[in-house]
Amino acid sequence: MELRDFFPMWDKLEPGQREALENALGRRSVKKDQIIHSGDMECTGLYLIQSGQLRAYILSEEGREISIYRLFPRDVCLFSASCIMRSIQFQVTIQAEKDSLLYVIPAEIYKGLMEQSAPLANYTNEIMASRFSEVMWLIEQVMWKSFDKRLAAFLLEESALEGSTLLKTTHELIAKHLGSAREVVTRMLRYFQSEGMVRLSRGAIELSDPEALEALRDG
Amino acid sequence: MELRDFFPMWDKLEPGQREALENALGRRSVKKDQIIHSGDMECTGLYLIQSGQLRAYILSEEGREISIYRLFPRDVCLFSASCIMRSIQFQVTIQAEKDSLLYVIPAEIYKGLMEQSAPLANYTNEIMASRFSEVMWLIEQVMWKSFDKRLAAFLLEESALEGSTLLKTTHELIAKHLGSAREVVTRMLRYFQSEGMVRLSRGAIELSDPEALEALRDG
Repeated sequence: MELRDFFPMWDKLEPGQREALENALGRRSVKKDQIIHSGDMECTGLYLIQSGQLRAYILSEEGREISIYRLFPRDVCLFSASCIMRSIQFQVTIQAEKDSLLYVIPAEIYKGLMEQSAPLANYTNEIMASRFSEVMWLIEQVMWKSFDKRLAAFLLEESALEGSTLLKTTHELIAKHLGSAREVVTRMLRYFQSEGMVRLSRGAIELSDPEALEALRDG
Repeated sequence: MELRDFFPMWDKLEPGQREALENALGRRSVKKDQIIHSGDMECTGLYLIQSGQLRAYILSEEGREISIYRLFPRDVCLFSASCIMRSIQFQVTIQAEKDSLLYVIPAEIYKGLMEQSAPLANYTNEIMASRFSEVMWLIEQVMWKSFDKRLAAFLLEESALEGSTLLKTTHELIAKHLGSAREVVTRMLRYFQSEGMVRLSRGAIELSDPEALEALRDG
């Protein structure tokens, strides 16, 4: 994957700007579960996801988590370089959900180019608007959807991502994604099992009736 | 108030760009409670708040509301022109909370200038990042804060905005701001009253012990 695969407006950059990005580009390989950016760290830079999967989440003072979005190959991770914009006044943590290969663009280089190039600035706007849209979707879920629907939606999303109806995950991990407590997840999964929608075993959840989960999610 | 008061990078625009903005500028006067933008409306344009106060909220399918941020004099209302960015995939409703005077910039004009001008595109980025930060704050509140703390914070914010400890508002309105139900607000306000923190009367709430509300909010 090349830089132009991440920046659809690549041809609108000037040759010198393209060169500056190419020369500054670093590479990083991260392992599943590794935290690659957190509020405490300095402004790390933009990550471009070549392969793998990242998740962005927020942390409460008590250490509770909720996932706010995920990043996939061809996505650009902006908030690991939040110093490029003064008005970003929140902290997200970025963690690898799978072994991942990343390109890194130093924040200072990117900021400098964004100040020169309207196409790059507008593309950055679009990236931020996408993440904003995901966070607005999350607020709607948290405010208006009951937990059973959110859990059904999450299981179906995981299943689609993994291409399998057998999910290797724990109740604890699901609770962290959804901003809930492990006991709440366990109780709801047991209810799903009693309704024949899932089959639970150690370290795994099988979606035995995905159609019923879809009906619950959309109902 | 002039255009340069809304755009700190005004001097970095080219003379022709400044002229285009000035020529396209409209004026609009809106009454308290008037809805000036909703998901159904076409892309209205950017509103610049000269005087008054707006609130942005989202609506559930069942008609429940939650405020996501407020706009004050010198603020720029971006999401009433959401068509300027393809990636804005959510709908907000904008309502006047007070009689307000607004400038209006047609979305098409603004979009065209943003495509030419890196300073304008980057400033637009900063505006979006500010709103994003407010929405992230809201998620943290909704996820991790109990309702009593959120209600105390809201009463104190209202009191600061109005410059008075006597708030002319209804339990219904507060519920809409906080994404809650009227009964829940009433029950909590009665509890606050029993603790001596507020005094309730028809159509008004007096903050009789703001320090106690602050302690609750920050506790």
